[in-house]
Amino acid sequence: MSITISDWSISENEFNPQKINHSETIFTIGNGYLSTRGAFEEHFPRENRSTFLHGVFDDVPVFFTELANAPDWTEMEIFLDGERFSLEKGRILQFERRLDLKTATLARTVRWESPKQNISTLTFERFASLADSHLCGLRVTITPENYEGTIEVRSGLNGHADNLGFLHWNWLGQSVTRNTATLLCQTRSSAIDLCIGLFQTLTGRDHTGRSFTWDVHNDPTVVSRINARQGEPLIATKWVTVLTSRDGRRAISQAQRSIRKLQTLNWQEAYQAHCAAWQKEWDRCDVIIEGDEEAQLAVRFNIFQLLIAAPRTDEHVSIGAKTLSGYGYRGHAFWDTEIFMLPFFTYTRPEIARNLLSYRWHNLPGARTKAQHNHFNGAQYPWESAATGEEVTPTWVTDPKDPGRLIRIWTGDIEIHISADISYAIWQYWKASGDDEFFARRGAEVILDTARFWASRAEWVDELQRYEINDIIGPDEYHDHVDNNTYTNALARWNLQTALNILPWLETNAPAQYHRLKRSLRLNPAELKKWHHVIDHLYLPLDEKTRLIEQFKGYFARKDVDLAAMEPRTESMQTILGIEGVAATQVLKQPDVLMLMYLLPDLYDRQTLEANYRYYTPRTDHTFGSSLGPSIQAIMACRVGDPSAYEHFMRAARADLLDVRNNAGDGIHGASAGGLWQAVVFGFAGLRFSSEDQQWHTHPTLPHGWKRIAFKINIHGKELSFDVHA
Amino acid sequence: MSITISDWSISENEFNPQKINHSETIFTIGNGYLSTRGAFEEHFPRENRSTFLHGVFDDVPVFFTELANAPDWTEMEIFLDGERFSLEKGRILQFERRLDLKTATLARTVRWESPKQNISTLTFERFASLADSHLCGLRVTITPENYEGTIEVRSGLNGHADNLGFLHWNWLGQSVTRNTATLLCQTRSSAIDLCIGLFQTLTGRDHTGRSFTWDVHNDPTVVSRINARQGEPLIATKWVTVLTSRDGRRAISQAQRSIRKLQTLNWQEAYQAHCAAWQKEWDRCDVIIEGDEEAQLAVRFNIFQLLIAAPRTDEHVSIGAKTLSGYGYRGHAFWDTEIFMLPFFTYTRPEIARNLLSYRWHNLPGARTKAQHNHFNGAQYPWESAATGEEVTPTWVTDPKDPGRLIRIWTGDIEIHISADISYAIWQYWKASGDDEFFARRGAEVILDTARFWASRAEWVDELQRYEINDIIGPDEYHDHVDNNTYTNALARWNLQTALNILPWLETNAPAQYHRLKRSLRLNPAELKKWHHVIDHLYLPLDEKTRLIEQFKGYFARKDVDLAAMEPRTESMQTILGIEGVAATQVLKQPDVLMLMYLLPDLYDRQTLEANYRYYTPRTDHTFGSSLGPSIQAIMACRVGDPSAYEHFMRAARADLLDVRNNAGDGIHGASAGGLWQAVVFGFAGLRFSSEDQQWHTHPTLPHGWKRIAFKINIHGKELSFDVHA
Repeated sequence: MSITISDWSISENEFNPQKINHSETIFTIGNGYLSTRGAFEEHFPRENRSTFLHGVFDDVPVFFTELANAPDWTEMEIFLDGERFSLEKGRILQFERRLDLKTATLARTVRWESPKQNISTLTFERFASLADSHLCGLRVTITPENYEGTIEVRSGLNGHADNLGFLHWNWLGQSVTRNTATLLCQTRSSAIDLCIGLFQTLTGRDHTGRSFTWDVHNDPTVVSRINARQGEPLIATKWVTVLTSRDGRRAISQAQRSIRKLQTLNWQEAYQAHCAAWQKEWDRCDVIIEGDEEAQLAVRFNIFQLLIAAPRTDEHVSIGAKTLSGYGYRGHAFWDTEIFMLPFFTYTRPEIARNLLSYRWHNLPGARTKAQHNHFNGAQYPWESAATGEEVTPTWVTDPKDPGRLIRIWTGDIEIHISADISYAIWQYWKASGDDEFFARRGAEVILDTARFWASRAEWVDELQRYEINDIIGPDEYHDHVDNNTYTNALARWNLQTALNILPWLETNAPAQYHRLKRSLRLNPAELKKWHHVIDHLYLPLDEKTRLIEQFKGYFARKDVDLAAMEPRTESMQTILGIEGVAATQVLKQPDVLMLMYLLPDLYDRQTLEANYRYYTPRTDHTFGSSLGPSIQAIMACRVGDPSAYEHFMRAARADLLDVRNNAGDGIHGASAGGLWQAVVFGFAGLRFSSEDQQWHTHPTLPHGWKRIAFKINIHGKELSFDVHA
Repeated sequence: MSITISDWSISENEFNPQKINHSETIFTIGNGYLSTRGAFEEHFPRENRSTFLHGVFDDVPVFFTELANAPDWTEMEIFLDGERFSLEKGRILQFERRLDLKTATLARTVRWESPKQNISTLTFERFASLADSHLCGLRVTITPENYEGTIEVRSGLNGHADNLGFLHWNWLGQSVTRNTATLLCQTRSSAIDLCIGLFQTLTGRDHTGRSFTWDVHNDPTVVSRINARQGEPLIATKWVTVLTSRDGRRAISQAQRSIRKLQTLNWQEAYQAHCAAWQKEWDRCDVIIEGDEEAQLAVRFNIFQLLIAAPRTDEHVSIGAKTLSGYGYRGHAFWDTEIFMLPFFTYTRPEIARNLLSYRWHNLPGARTKAQHNHFNGAQYPWESAATGEEVTPTWVTDPKDPGRLIRIWTGDIEIHISADISYAIWQYWKASGDDEFFARRGAEVILDTARFWASRAEWVDELQRYEINDIIGPDEYHDHVDNNTYTNALARWNLQTALNILPWLETNAPAQYHRLKRSLRLNPAELKKWHHVIDHLYLPLDEKTRLIEQFKGYFARKDVDLAAMEPRTESMQTILGIEGVAATQVLKQPDVLMLMYLLPDLYDRQTLEANYRYYTPRTDHTFGSSLGPSIQAIMACRVGDPSAYEHFMRAARADLLDVRNNAGDGIHGASAGGLWQAVVFGFAGLRFSSEDQQWHTHPTLPHGWKRIAFKINIHGKELSFDVHA
């Protein structure tokens, strides 16, 4: 795909059927309640169209649960003088698809010659309203250029919506009027009701088409017909409203009112309200980069992806690793949310950060069940999390090369650092927002109960008189079943220390909460003494001479591979060497020690930072390893003054836009999107809090050619503006 | 469910929503081209409706491939004066569903009071024509008893047909006229095109309803409306035609002609042609039992199940373990076809047996691939077989008690006796039919190439100077990874001996085939010498003193369990003891040694038969072990004069009708159905071929109360009638 660069829009000027799934991902729109991939209204073979609503999960084999693809509000069949509009037939004379980031509007213009050589221009526009999260608008302007005849537009509410061939919905009911259709359905296992209604009109310059409905079971359809005159543009307008039983007990019963309201809507007014809401978002969240058009667009595109996936009114959902934009990871949330995406929200939209962190607090019961199941205390968060906070990492998946073989997925069992990552994000949010009320009522409980988990998880090794954490997976997933992963050990210790630190604060500032938590979490003196003991004796390696930190026990003894000599590659090192092959080497999916130094910068001195940066950087699979790596690598490059920072940054910037990892079709890389914002703000602009003057300062290291970086952050409810010039 | 007994029909007189899946199975109808479960036209929650067409397989996770549920020809929505007819609402005043086996017609009469207290009587009738396998007819007679108003009948062709939530079809196209609809779709992986067309009318005593169509995408729907007068019956008639690209290269392009033909059909004529075709089947296949109404009905019901699943014109398909009547085993064929179902066809409908055996011959390439993959020679047939003859046994399935755990299924790897079973069925067919042409061109090749497999599979044990076949599963699947399973060893030796025996016949009677096969199968003197050596030295145990044959090496040393003491049970012994638990005992899923004595009666003397019958019978899980067991057990009981023969026979007879194993909802137990016919003919009637006078004779041992058994068989093209009286 060739993308045209502008400050505020992504566009393609030709239709490439080989890349439709990639295009569908990057042309996703949404409003924080739902997101819809950019598939064509009229369908196309091998499309992966989807509309995902936050929190609407349903059971599925292998992955336990997944976001259920909802009945599609964008579906539209168009008949031009009896011929069905389809890009599979006829000739495409002109094609443009454009996503306007400023207004979250997707538009497509196609000039199409039909098999019987009628030429039409069709312009589709769609938006999911940010002013009314239950409202979606779609209109198509059709101009018959060299013919006249009947134009017919059919919009159905298809209850047979599937996830890659798997059905999640049962029909409950439907109704139609002259130009509205309503469908009520329910997820098959989780029993979430969904009501979707549509209203459609078709008008010409001075006449209105006739509308009627086809009340077909599970696909009620509004049909609008008009007599078209040559050269006269006709506009079909379709309004859709969606509600689910997750929106409140009375949401479904009130849906009929919402559907009636659709008939009173005016496109200009509704669209203006939507645009105004977006203007407010950009006022708070935009990052301006001058001197690098591609970087500017990429940063806005990635901020946009975070904003369309951000739950604004729902504190029972998180953002999945692929946001709401594709089937990858089935909508499950990982540490990607807390460590990579959350800082953007924490510093620009703390209200959203609070929702996302509240999701984890609400899911404490699931985390406690997991800890208990594994015979630990406290709260152990699931590696993959969905509606309930239970562990939903698949245990076995089919080997793509041999469907009779299975591959065991261990992350759900032993990638445990996420419990500390969540505590870290809570602490970071509290420090930035000053939201004491959230912290006292919710955040502190998570930090304390994850600390309890760590204290029970650490294993006392009597002969070495120290604690170890063994048989785990660190962020670098090329190595599993490792002992004493430094990242995990250090974050666990940080989690315990922070838990101890907040107790006096709680006692002073929220005594009722303090006593409630002490009781409910059984924080007796023996427990707290154990925490101190673990903090003091948890093993953290450091070679005093070389200043090198071994990523895990025995890492330095593994085979050293000259990665540079293998470039250029088109596959990950894991694909090239195999799961066991890459594990036997020092090649990293992402560098845990550098990640640790990013999150806890005061833990090591500059000499240690530089030594480890020099050691781990050439051993990391930056190109096809973890998509989480490049943005953090860019930040650490900035810290040591390595000019390759820009190269790493652009690798993250292009992950989805240019599909450099060949998997953007599965959905947006949410962590990479969040990391990109961090790379600009904490990397190139070098934003840091100074404990000396208690102020935030920038320490810019702008890439070559960059003239300016400007952005705002929100600290303790106050907006701070930064404007950095080269 | 309470079933009413009559000679020729199965009926239920009340609607039990708890047993709908069982009822759907036993009210399945079909015509050897397709079968349709007895689900309600208007749908009901938790139904498992399906229409399976022979050979229309498509890829699916875990099970590799499955019969794709086709767009449903029975679907019908009925609106009575504006109210949707549904048994979920209102009151059922009367209910009867009746399957007439003689005419393969399913009828249902419902007297229903709607929520607004309108009372109607609806009688549905459906048949899949045996006279024209692409034709299905459905009509409903609606009588408004206490109201008048509009009656509306909607029949759609729903392309979103799913298999338990999984979609197999892509839309290709559709068209409608005033009262016809056509849908063209394609399976997603196997790319089989399917065209389905419908024509619908709605008429009263002296007036005709208005029909029109709703051209909704992937669900084109014919709607018929009529003004109903109180007490006047109205008849909606729906004709459907189905064709696929498997029916020949031009089948799809000729479909439009078939759809036009629907409009000229007359119900009486088309139905009479169908009934006449069924009369011919019953003339050849019926078994008359006098003195036992339940047994009479059950035998006819089971013969019916075989006849509706039997491919009459297609030699590229087999009959799956659950026929075409349910999702169990996904349409895959096992040895159930050759050993349990095939004798019925071989002896009554040899044309069908020839088709079923030709399926195996066409799939020799798949069997050769499997042998090669396992480093053996010749042809190793798959344990589960579908379209191509490749192995399609799932390797891992989810533990129903713990979805995170998987259970390894070993049968596809090591249940190898099927290759000999197929050869046995071919030989049996040849002997009965005298079809030398089939045998020379097709059958012999299978027997020779499976013999090659066995010669390479047998392992020479030098210290014992004998061949063994180790690490396998015999028919008794409670014990896996066993050595020297006697059933398998004996059938393998029979396969090799039969292969040697047929070579001289081939050389004399089909010299061209003989030389072709010798070349293509590389049957050189060294190979044939090896066969002799294996036959002479393949280990077959027999204790000369006790006359006991050990089912496999070490069986007698396993724990002996007093099964009788555990009655009554409601679960299988495997469920009670666990997979490993039951394997440690002598409890059998089915008795391999008795099965062997059934298939090769001349191998052992009567004393040996009786000793083994006495030993193995009390150690077999007759009630919840293999559904293949009871009918063969009944035959062996007849042979030794054990009066419990009838009890075993009725266990098989009731397997589906009374759902005694609690799994009839998954589909008909095809092997049990075939075994039942064998139990009557070879068990109670005692039919045997006498080598002395070269004639077939009966040796009756009729159960108490039975007055007569009458049946026909076809030997060398001649019909022989048997009439046995008590």
